[in-house]
Amino acid sequence: VSLGEFELIDTYFRRPARHAALGVGDDCALLETPSGLQLAVSCDTLVAGRHFAPDADARSLGHKALAVNLSDLAACGARPSAFLLALTLPRVDEVFLAAFAQGLWALADLYAMDLIGGDTTSGPLSMTITVFGEVPRGQALLRSGARAGDDVWVSGTLGDARLALEAQRGRLSAATPALLDAARARLDRPSPRVALGQALRGVASAAVDVSDGLLADLGHVVEASSRAAGLRLGARIDAGALPLSEGVAALAPTWQLDCALAGGDDYELCFTAPAQLATAVEAAAGTAGVPVTRIGRIEAGGGVQVLQADGRRIEREFGGFDHFLS
Amino acid sequence: VSLGEFELIDTYFRRPARHAALGVGDDCALLETPSGLQLAVSCDTLVAGRHFAPDADARSLGHKALAVNLSDLAACGARPSAFLLALTLPRVDEVFLAAFAQGLWALADLYAMDLIGGDTTSGPLSMTITVFGEVPRGQALLRSGARAGDDVWVSGTLGDARLALEAQRGRLSAATPALLDAARARLDRPSPRVALGQALRGVASAAVDVSDGLLADLGHVVEASSRAAGLRLGARIDAGALPLSEGVAALAPTWQLDCALAGGDDYELCFTAPAQLATAVEAAAGTAGVPVTRIGRIEAGGGVQVLQADGRRIEREFGGFDHFLS
Repeated sequence: VSLGEFELIDTYFRRPARHAALGVGDDCALLETPSGLQLAVSCDTLVAGRHFAPDADARSLGHKALAVNLSDLAACGARPSAFLLALTLPRVDEVFLAAFAQGLWALADLYAMDLIGGDTTSGPLSMTITVFGEVPRGQALLRSGARAGDDVWVSGTLGDARLALEAQRGRLSAATPALLDAARARLDRPSPRVALGQALRGVASAAVDVSDGLLADLGHVVEASSRAAGLRLGARIDAGALPLSEGVAALAPTWQLDCALAGGDDYELCFTAPAQLATAVEAAAGTAGVPVTRIGRIEAGGGVQVLQADGRRIEREFGGFDHFLS
Repeated sequence: VSLGEFELIDTYFRRPARHAALGVGDDCALLETPSGLQLAVSCDTLVAGRHFAPDADARSLGHKALAVNLSDLAACGARPSAFLLALTLPRVDEVFLAAFAQGLWALADLYAMDLIGGDTTSGPLSMTITVFGEVPRGQALLRSGARAGDDVWVSGTLGDARLALEAQRGRLSAATPALLDAARARLDRPSPRVALGQALRGVASAAVDVSDGLLADLGHVVEASSRAAGLRLGARIDAGALPLSEGVAALAPTWQLDCALAGGDDYELCFTAPAQLATAVEAAAGTAGVPVTRIGRIEAGGGVQVLQADGRRIEREFGGFDHFLS
């Protein structure tokens, strides 16, 4: 069996944690703090030419660099509190910096976050943000809590960022310019589901943010939950239930599924909850002002399966999003 | 007055902290944790072609990426506990990864540090590490604690990394191959003064790690301490007292001072302490097994001055190390 590239990387950097207080997290690591809070920590990098076009709008970039990190905090149910910014710039360009900072602070200010440190270096444009959030001890949403019989939910709509990306590449076109603009806004200025994550504490049994595509990220939940439960779990997804924007719904059926199931860059939350908590899930969504859709169920038995309306399994592969392959 | 480039960047990203528990740090930010400890946090980026040659030895790189971050923890007197690794790679190269991981873990294992998360992306080679360390509440070494009359100390020797760098550039040559090798080891595999930083808690009044050159970094101490004391402080450095390795001592006098005062990449600690604690400083150095040298004094009145043996001020500029200018 040849190792996948990410598994190869894992081989070198994954080790069991030695300090109880600093356990290896999931979307975030959790550190102990006083007064019953845990500190959720995560970091994500954006690289020019890979995660964004070299001529990307600087204001959107400032927003997105923080948003993708906030999405990890959201997946843990944490309240954002602070961040570190490591910014690598090819040159000091005041116009770029002003716009980047504006986009960054507009989002940081929404959550009253402090920038507590960082590093500025010269080199190919990229940015790594480390975010800190607070969560009451023991209440963080983890990937590992799903149980057989739980419903699988997802917030918002799926596949819009992928539609925008494929349109940029000339491989897809949106039905109307307005629908393309809407998809581009999802790609460039994602809305991390921070309020929803917090509202789901005590309700969701597991959660993950959808950054690599629904199937890949739900796969992480199934895997982590199987390990935690000591038995093999799976998931069935009802293709007809997937929440699609008007733009994605207007695509050919094959593209609809590729975008929704393996799109990448969605920054929605995929989470599980016991069936009897469906009303509580709806209430949490109402509190957060974010629509949620029940799309399937966790089952005993392995793998994530996608079923069409007649209940038959869709057998084809939905290519996962891998930055080393794309 | 035209803003320097770093001041320009500061303009956009510096804001007063809004949460008491998450104050803006200095070498590190300090976060509250239970049981009387504070968490020191810092992040530093290394970029290929800027901080290291694109063909740099991967094992040394793994060491240095963590070492420069440990140096910030050392400057706060913190005990290292964990880190996040954001690694950007042009391709997945198993030989590189294995060697990089080996260098990284050899240093991390010295301090029983956990890797608690991170991100792996594809792009121009660079790495951002975020480190976490613990320090008893209120005992962190800050840049702002120096007082008039305090002695100024520095650990180890200064200027070796600069000698190695200038030799690589063909602008300097070391007296012997062995001295060049010793200088290169300082550039490629710096020893962060972690034990010394911890031993100096309760002894040093202020500390900083020497990464941009002694004058620049001591300047930060003077500036922060002036602000904290509400009066203008300065420092006098005795050029004849600067601790030099055999390699740097063999250079022409002008180069000796340029390397020692504005060298960059030293990763020594520069710290201040009341004169009556000189014995305690020596004891801390003995505990840590790192030589320290008294090189000057904090004074009332502005600026950092360098005095030659006859007591006259050396008036020429020692160019500071600025990644955007070099």
